[in-house]
Amino acid sequence: MVAVDIEISEVGPRDGLQSIAPIMATVDKKAWISALAAAGIPEIEVGSFVPAQLLPQLADTAELVTHGKNIPGLSVAVLVPNLRGAEDALTVMPHKMTVPLSVSETHSLKNLRRTHEQVLAEVRGIRAAIDAHPVAQRPKLEGSLSTAFGCTLEGEVPQSKVLEMAEKLMQAGCDEVGLSDTTGYASPRQVRDYTRAIHQLLGKSALTGIHLHNTRGQGLANVMAALEVGLTTVDASMGGIGGCPFAPGASGNIVTEDLVFLLESMGLKTGVNFERLFEARRVLAQALPAVELYGFTPDAGFPKDFRPATPQ
Amino acid sequence: MVAVDIEISEVGPRDGLQSIAPIMATVDKKAWISALAAAGIPEIEVGSFVPAQLLPQLADTAELVTHGKNIPGLSVAVLVPNLRGAEDALTVMPHKMTVPLSVSETHSLKNLRRTHEQVLAEVRGIRAAIDAHPVAQRPKLEGSLSTAFGCTLEGEVPQSKVLEMAEKLMQAGCDEVGLSDTTGYASPRQVRDYTRAIHQLLGKSALTGIHLHNTRGQGLANVMAALEVGLTTVDASMGGIGGCPFAPGASGNIVTEDLVFLLESMGLKTGVNFERLFEARRVLAQALPAVELYGFTPDAGFPKDFRPATPQ
Repeated sequence: MVAVDIEISEVGPRDGLQSIAPIMATVDKKAWISALAAAGIPEIEVGSFVPAQLLPQLADTAELVTHGKNIPGLSVAVLVPNLRGAEDALTVMPHKMTVPLSVSETHSLKNLRRTHEQVLAEVRGIRAAIDAHPVAQRPKLEGSLSTAFGCTLEGEVPQSKVLEMAEKLMQAGCDEVGLSDTTGYASPRQVRDYTRAIHQLLGKSALTGIHLHNTRGQGLANVMAALEVGLTTVDASMGGIGGCPFAPGASGNIVTEDLVFLLESMGLKTGVNFERLFEARRVLAQALPAVELYGFTPDAGFPKDFRPATPQ
Repeated sequence: MVAVDIEISEVGPRDGLQSIAPIMATVDKKAWISALAAAGIPEIEVGSFVPAQLLPQLADTAELVTHGKNIPGLSVAVLVPNLRGAEDALTVMPHKMTVPLSVSETHSLKNLRRTHEQVLAEVRGIRAAIDAHPVAQRPKLEGSLSTAFGCTLEGEVPQSKVLEMAEKLMQAGCDEVGLSDTTGYASPRQVRDYTRAIHQLLGKSALTGIHLHNTRGQGLANVMAALEVGLTTVDASMGGIGGCPFAPGASGNIVTEDLVFLLESMGLKTGVNFERLFEARRVLAQALPAVELYGFTPDAGFPKDFRPATPQ
C-alpha cells in the first residue's frame, strides 16, 4: 500500500447506482468494486441499507459488504438511513457507516420524514447498537451533514445551524461528521468557512471528509478549498454517475477520474494507478451500456509527459 | 461602474470564434459584444489581426474594435501575431494588444513558423510601432506565454524556460505578460509556482492575468490557484466556445458563466449582472444555432437565495 496524501472515497456503487434507473447485476457490481480496489481506491461506499422496495438498485448491499471485506486493505463503507438499517449493516460489519442528517429540517421532513430530534435519536440508537459489539469489530460512524451548503427548499442554510447539527451528531455518538453538498450549492468560501468553524468547535479529527457535487461546475474548485483547510478525504463517483437532470457534463457527483488527475497533477498522492482506474471505468461501462459516463480526463487523455505523484 | 475584485476578460469573439467553422456575421458580433458589455464584462478580446485568408472568421476585427471603442468603459483587446498585425491594429487603436509567444519553441516553429528570437524581434518592432503614437493613445502590450504549462509536442515545459521567456518579453517592450494554458495541461500547483516565480523575478505588476482551458475539467480549480497567488484578470469564453474535439462539456476555454458564478459565490465582485449575461448568451445562441454552448450554471440555474457579490 502506498501512503496517500488524500483519500478518495468512491461513492459510485451507492450514490451513483441509486440515482439511475438500470439495476446493475450483483456480479457486475462485485467486478466493479474489485476493479476499483485494484486501482488503489482506498474506500468504497458499496451500498445503502434501505428497504429493497424503496431502492431495488441497492438490494444486494449486504452481499457487497462481504465481497468488499474480502479485498485486502479496502475500507468498506455503507449508508444507513436509520437504526433499522444500521442493525442490518451490523450483521455483515462494514468498516464505516454513514448516517445522513439534513441540516435543512424542511428537507429532512420531506425526504426522511423525520425531525432533527428524531434523526439524532436514531443516531444514538445506532451508537448503542455499534457499542454492543467488541471494540475491534466496530465500524466507524460518520454523521453526514447533508444540505449543509444550502437547500432547494429552504434556500440558505445558516452556518450556525451547520455547526449546531455537527455538534449534536458528535454528542449523539458519531466518530466524526462530514460536509455534504447535496444540492450542488457549495462555494469555495463556504467550504473554507464551515470547515474552519467545525474544526474550531469540535477539533480537526471531527471533520476530515467532504462530499461535493459538480452540478454547477464548481466541484473541483470546491476541492481546492477543502485541501486548503486540511480535509483529507474526498468523495467522488466514477464517471460522475449519479447524474442529474441537467446538460452534458453536468453530473451530480464529482468525477473520480478528474479528481484523481487534479490531485496527482498537484503532487498529492492518492495511491491510484490510472491504467487500472480506466480499466475499472471499462468494467462499469460494459455493465451499464445505457448510462452516460462523464469525465474530462478520460476523454482528453493525459498531458504528454504527465507524471502522477503516485508511483504507477 | 462597479469596482471589481476580479476582471473577466471575455475572449469568445476571438478565441471562441476562431475555433469554430461557422462565420458569425459582423452585425451579430457587434450585438454580442454590446450585450457582453451591457452585462458588465469589463474587457473583450474582439478579434485577431491575422490575414483574412487564414482566419476568415475574424476578418472584421478592425470594424469590431471601432464598435467596441464606442461602448463607454469597455476595454477593447485584440490579438496580434506579429508586427504586421500590430500595424493594422494601430490604425484603429484598441486598448490592449496581446502578442503570443509559445514557450515551447517546437510549437512556436510549427504554429508560427518562428523561433523565439524571431518572435521577440517582432515584439520589439511592435513596441516601436506603439511608441510612435502619443502616450495617451498607446494600447497596452501584453506578451502571452502560450504553452506555458506544457506542450503537446515537447511535453513538459520547464519553469525556467517560462521565466526566461517572461523576462525576454518584458525586455522586448511588453507592458506585462500573461500565462496561457494553451494545451489544457495546467495544474493548480503550476499556476501557483509559475506565478510566484514571475512575480519574484519581474514584480507583481508584470503578471496579473491568466488564460486557462478546461480540457481536463481543471479550469476552475486552476482559477482557485490563480486567486490564491493574487492574479486579478481571468480570461474566459461565453458558453465555453472555442471548443475542443473531446466529449460533452469538454470545452476548450473556461466558461464565462461558470467562472462568474464561482467568483460571485465567493464574494468576489466581477461587476457582472447575471440576467444580462444570460441575455448575451441568448444573443450568441441565436447567432450560432449550430454551435453547442457549454456551461453548468446556465443549465442548472442558481441556488435558491443566491446572492451575488455584485449588486444586480
